[in-house]
Amino acid sequence: MNFGIIAPAFIKDSGIPMTVNHSDTSSEEAYQQSCEALSKSLGRELLQQGLVLGTAESCTGGMIAAAITDTAGSSAWFEEGLVTYANQSKQRLLGVDEAVLDQHGAVSRPVVEAMVAGVLARGADVAVATSGIAGPDGGSADKPVGTVWLAWGTAQGTHSQCEVFAGNRRQVREQAVLFALNGLMEQLQAAG
Amino acid sequence: MNFGIIAPAFIKDSGIPMTVNHSDTSSEEAYQQSCEALSKSLGRELLQQGLVLGTAESCTGGMIAAAITDTAGSSAWFEEGLVTYANQSKQRLLGVDEAVLDQHGAVSRPVVEAMVAGVLARGADVAVATSGIAGPDGGSADKPVGTVWLAWGTAQGTHSQCEVFAGNRRQVREQAVLFALNGLMEQLQAAG
Repeated sequence: MNFGIIAPAFIKDSGIPMTVNHSDTSSEEAYQQSCEALSKSLGRELLQQGLVLGTAESCTGGMIAAAITDTAGSSAWFEEGLVTYANQSKQRLLGVDEAVLDQHGAVSRPVVEAMVAGVLARGADVAVATSGIAGPDGGSADKPVGTVWLAWGTAQGTHSQCEVFAGNRRQVREQAVLFALNGLMEQLQAAG
Repeated sequence: MNFGIIAPAFIKDSGIPMTVNHSDTSSEEAYQQSCEALSKSLGRELLQQGLVLGTAESCTGGMIAAAITDTAGSSAWFEEGLVTYANQSKQRLLGVDEAVLDQHGAVSRPVVEAMVAGVLARGADVAVATSGIAGPDGGSADKPVGTVWLAWGTAQGTHSQCEVFAGNRRQVREQAVLFALNGLMEQLQAAG
């Protein structure tokens, strides 16, 4: 079983494998390798542009921060990451408005954009945020399992996107991480 | 090459493999399996005792939060995790005293204990914190690469411990995660 290949621009160009396929024992290794390659490229780019990255993760639960800090020397471009799993944590740490959470739900464009704004307000130059339904429960007709909202931002602006990833909980989360890192690279390359 | 088996009490009793051995492609999978087993046991214990866990990670950089949120339903016992990679972040988010950081260094008992206190002050019932030198750089005669301070705490008290893990950056981090999760289980089982 292959749960699909996502190939956003940076990854496609770089030749980093984006396959998330856990039917064999080596696939966890493959995910780690893609993460490692992306994290290294990202680190080089951030260092070159003199920028500090901050993260705010809901459904990926720390996996983006873990991927970034897997690269030695990452303290030069990464100071803090927030895993805001509960809505109250999104409010307290990132200043996400309770009314926005109530009106749109945690898995929504306004919430991930507010999360990015919160990270930038805490002092980061570049931010990424995720909020999604990794499953197996929590899906609905409107927002099925696999739905992940992602946002990337700098002081110059914020971009957000919704993806519906296939696969089980871990596969959804891993694809969201690769997609998040790829989006950061795209944003930095466009700005650089 | 086998970088050793660490077998703290809970893991030893449960039969969860603690080997961190990355000489073959299946070892990343083995780490994930150990994490998953520990994370599920931990979730059951927290849920049963009605406790909420919080994390503060430096050298593990989000890997503990990632392991915990790998378990479906973890939002019932995990609300937020902080990846305080920079000293300033440890101060701002966790209230770690600058003088303590200056005097003892970030990789020290007073700092991980202050990180745990910071997590508890933010509202968690149970806390874990890590700060270490994952390498390949940053080691000294006094604190070689692989040195990791860990602390676990509740309102009833805090316990801290220093380990020196063998292996490369990823292996040091993975062993620290398994050790951190194991320590949480021990603390909960002693209290339960």
